[in-house]
Amino acid sequence: MTITDVAKAAGVSRQTVSNALNSPEVVREETLKHVLEVIERLGYRANQAARQMRTGRSRLIAIGIEPDGDGISGSWADRFLHSLSETAAQEGYRILLYTAADDDSEIATYEDLLGAYKPDAFVLTATHHDDLRASWLLERGLPFVAFGRPWSDLPDARHPWVDVDGAAGTEAATRHLLAAGHRRIGFIGWPPGSGVGDDRREGWARALSRQDLSGLQRAVEDGIAAGESAALDLLAADPGVTALVCASDSLALGALQAREPGRPVAVIGFDDTPAARAVGLTSVHQPLGEAAAACVDLLARALESPDAGPPSAHVLLAPTLTIRQSA
Amino acid sequence: MTITDVAKAAGVSRQTVSNALNSPEVVREETLKHVLEVIERLGYRANQAARQMRTGRSRLIAIGIEPDGDGISGSWADRFLHSLSETAAQEGYRILLYTAADDDSEIATYEDLLGAYKPDAFVLTATHHDDLRASWLLERGLPFVAFGRPWSDLPDARHPWVDVDGAAGTEAATRHLLAAGHRRIGFIGWPPGSGVGDDRREGWARALSRQDLSGLQRAVEDGIAAGESAALDLLAADPGVTALVCASDSLALGALQAREPGRPVAVIGFDDTPAARAVGLTSVHQPLGEAAAACVDLLARALESPDAGPPSAHVLLAPTLTIRQSA
Repeated sequence: MTITDVAKAAGVSRQTVSNALNSPEVVREETLKHVLEVIERLGYRANQAARQMRTGRSRLIAIGIEPDGDGISGSWADRFLHSLSETAAQEGYRILLYTAADDDSEIATYEDLLGAYKPDAFVLTATHHDDLRASWLLERGLPFVAFGRPWSDLPDARHPWVDVDGAAGTEAATRHLLAAGHRRIGFIGWPPGSGVGDDRREGWARALSRQDLSGLQRAVEDGIAAGESAALDLLAADPGVTALVCASDSLALGALQAREPGRPVAVIGFDDTPAARAVGLTSVHQPLGEAAAACVDLLARALESPDAGPPSAHVLLAPTLTIRQSA
Repeated sequence: MTITDVAKAAGVSRQTVSNALNSPEVVREETLKHVLEVIERLGYRANQAARQMRTGRSRLIAIGIEPDGDGISGSWADRFLHSLSETAAQEGYRILLYTAADDDSEIATYEDLLGAYKPDAFVLTATHHDDLRASWLLERGLPFVAFGRPWSDLPDARHPWVDVDGAAGTEAATRHLLAAGHRRIGFIGWPPGSGVGDDRREGWARALSRQDLSGLQRAVEDGIAAGESAALDLLAADPGVTALVCASDSLALGALQAREPGRPVAVIGFDDTPAARAVGLTSVHQPLGEAAAACVDLLARALESPDAGPPSAHVLLAPTLTIRQSA
């Protein structure tokens, strides 16, 4: 539905429709009334301005964008934001972007945005234990959805969320290796305590224990160099290890470099990043477009029926394994 | 400047300041007046809401986000958007995100946004020959800045822009190879006619002709597979070629795969993507953060002095060469 469709249906020029929307004072009253009626009848979306004035809603959804870290595993925002913008527009919302260095500055930004732009809702990313942002929004009854689970069982951590089942991803990766005949499969992950990292470790351990197997693991901060030294250490500790599952593509790229000539080691990463594609790394693929669309869907439903109370709806999406040369 | 600073200066709680901004009806009239005075005096930014009502300005800058292509060379949006959001916030603006498949749908989106959100300005990306979007915005006198040059000499194509000097980037890459002793240096680029692609080819040709040299070139659509076959073809056509400069990291990743054992070929890409980092590809680095900040700077200046007429200010940034193992 474009402004041209509206013009045709109303029997006026595109410019007149545009004026009716943007500069109503220059349009004859009769014409204005007619055009606005056609717009209303066709449900043309630019009618948001009128709707907004009527409802006091901004039709804005705010989301924070993080610095991209080493640019490898962190760079999911491109794909997520594209889908978020596209699906939000279909529901009549636009995306308001901001940056924040930590929880506290993100909360200060919420206050700023609420004062100046009154976004209808927020999308939280990078959820973590004791997430101050979620509590702040919950206390004030502000609609939001988290991309990422609330990593807490506390009742006040209940809010709508969308997430990808990381454990299912590493479990699928490990089963792929088991099916190829590997029996000694190691894991390179992050230090315990991060919800996302613990979840990814859990899937690997579960797949092994179902076959009465266990494996060595190492925990390091994310990064290619850290992945390489952790893999070197693990491979030296058990010369029988023939495969590694990693919590991120960054760690997996390091693990690839740790391989020695004459000792083939299968490696699987997590995130299916462009870097994984470039080097032929088998990796767990997160359905980011679908996740963004699910965020918009949960928010749109909450915003259409605000009286239904804080919804605790959630969507847990299954990742898939993108198989390439490395495993 | 945070809400806490305002609270301290006003001698009230943070909650009271927040209420004064977001729910003034629950604050005692006297307190409200006092808090708003302090906010005004300190120039606290959340005061935008009031300023916006006064000035009719939305304090929103709209930018489109493209699908990420193969996710390698296309994925600059993460870095650019982060810097754009951060620097815009410092100037008191926020970023409104949208998607559009082509020029026509982007123009329809402009109309939509102007009707519903009244953004103060637009950032155009992926400028190209005969850019309908720029003409549309220019005709209406709407403030915008392009990230990318107007690829036309027509006088009506004059508008503020920020760009990275692609020719300077490939020239630096080629000079780096010349300094290392290479004399037969090929170029893998895109079909003629794209402003960005022609510019990058130009820098390579210029560096060679300054040494009275010339080289073979191939032109293909972007992509790893296309880069590989173009490089195979070029290397077969001239067995003396020892180095390749490529118009993108995707093409360069393909060129790396085209190398045969026993014939070392130096390869340089363009964009310094995460994939380049992962495989050790030397690549031309674009200062995307600086480019985004320059866009905000040009817009903020145009918006502060709207009567200065359509400014034709522009900023051409120099890229740098990130040297890794491949060249």
